[in-house]
Amino acid sequence: MAPFAVCTSPHLAHVPRMVTPTSIMFFLFFLQYVSNRHAVGQSSTEQGSLHSHHLQESLHDPQLIPCTCPLFSCQWEGHLEVVVSHLRQTHRINILHGAEIIFLATDMHLPAPTDWIIMHSCLGHQFLLVLRKQEKYEGHPQFFATMMLIGTPTQADNFTYRLELNRNQRRLKWEATPRSVLECVDSVISDGDCLVLNTSLAQLFSDNGSLAIGIAITASKVHTAGTEM
Amino acid sequence: MAPFAVCTSPHLAHVPRMVTPTSIMFFLFFLQYVSNRHAVGQSSTEQGSLHSHHLQESLHDPQLIPCTCPLFSCQWEGHLEVVVSHLRQTHRINILHGAEIIFLATDMHLPAPTDWIIMHSCLGHQFLLVLRKQEKYEGHPQFFATMMLIGTPTQADNFTYRLELNRNQRRLKWEATPRSVLECVDSVISDGDCLVLNTSLAQLFSDNGSLAIGIAITASKVHTAGTEM
Repeated sequence: MAPFAVCTSPHLAHVPRMVTPTSIMFFLFFLQYVSNRHAVGQSSTEQGSLHSHHLQESLHDPQLIPCTCPLFSCQWEGHLEVVVSHLRQTHRINILHGAEIIFLATDMHLPAPTDWIIMHSCLGHQFLLVLRKQEKYEGHPQFFATMMLIGTPTQADNFTYRLELNRNQRRLKWEATPRSVLECVDSVISDGDCLVLNTSLAQLFSDNGSLAIGIAITASKVHTAGTEM
Repeated sequence: MAPFAVCTSPHLAHVPRMVTPTSIMFFLFFLQYVSNRHAVGQSSTEQGSLHSHHLQESLHDPQLIPCTCPLFSCQWEGHLEVVVSHLRQTHRINILHGAEIIFLATDMHLPAPTDWIIMHSCLGHQFLLVLRKQEKYEGHPQFFATMMLIGTPTQADNFTYRLELNRNQRRLKWEATPRSVLECVDSVISDGDCLVLNTSLAQLFSDNGSLAIGIAITASKVHTAGTEM
């Protein structure tokens, strides 16, 4: 069987931008992947079903997993080792390198549901950042951000990711263990087990409709039983 | 005119508790002030009106301010310098000392709207922490936490407060400039310009129905134009 089959989903726009670097980040990248899932007629529920369906289909070979890109319905399945290649080549999701980076999500005003996606290569592994604008409560869109390791849950347990917003004399930091892409990103977001922003906070942290998210990965767990409150 | 007049609102319960100290905090206190405002028939809207009304009434002496305790409807008004005495003596709100403390809010399961209040003495000033459980969207209670300086807006601009939650391999930090108690806490919370927790996150950070909030105050601003992203 081929390492992966090319899916037929439409490719994503890639919009590089320039902004001023800061002193606290090693790398500064400006990439935006936006897909208004209204436009492709795919809801989170449909994605979840698709994901589960793919997982069931893959039972004939437990090492095969479905496409982990939440932007589009994609029929691809393949081994974990080639997920990154699939995301880069088929979905044109760029990959950023470095322990600490900044991801600039532009056009935050786009209607929900909308996803922003970036891959982050760090400490010998690749991670997927998903920022989702979704209306859990009708008429009240919220933003949900999480990181998934392109690896197994056991591997994911070895890392901590940090998402940081810093603007207008406010700072918001979220740290957690990344989930594995073998889990469903939709359930992480529907559970609210991620960075959650209401619209007013997102506006406070945004600059001209763009939200800069500082991302950092560490290998050693900062949360131990001894330091928990 | 007397420094302050005793209000007629009911006094609050004071529930000291014991938990294990941590290495990162200098002081550990366990105080809970809970008032289910359903029980006293006072909504946030009513409080806001009351506060505005008080402010208008105080125009004859601009140095007189209404009671800043959001727990009960209180007819008291007095000078800023005696607000702390009023809160302690009349509302029995305790005051905790130290640069970093932990506030344990118990009984997080209580129905919205519910407030938890504590005063924090630090760097020569007193601050008021307000944790509020409120249903912005019917059937979906959220938690909102903010700190107010018992002082003027100009004084408040000299400080930064940090609220931190840390449990279950997750950490959430919120840093901002405190508002002055001369502003209305209801508007801060209704604007969502504070630490916001949905129910599922509050449960993840809670231990047996209690939420430990790390509180720290710094005098120098950590947010400058140069470090903003």
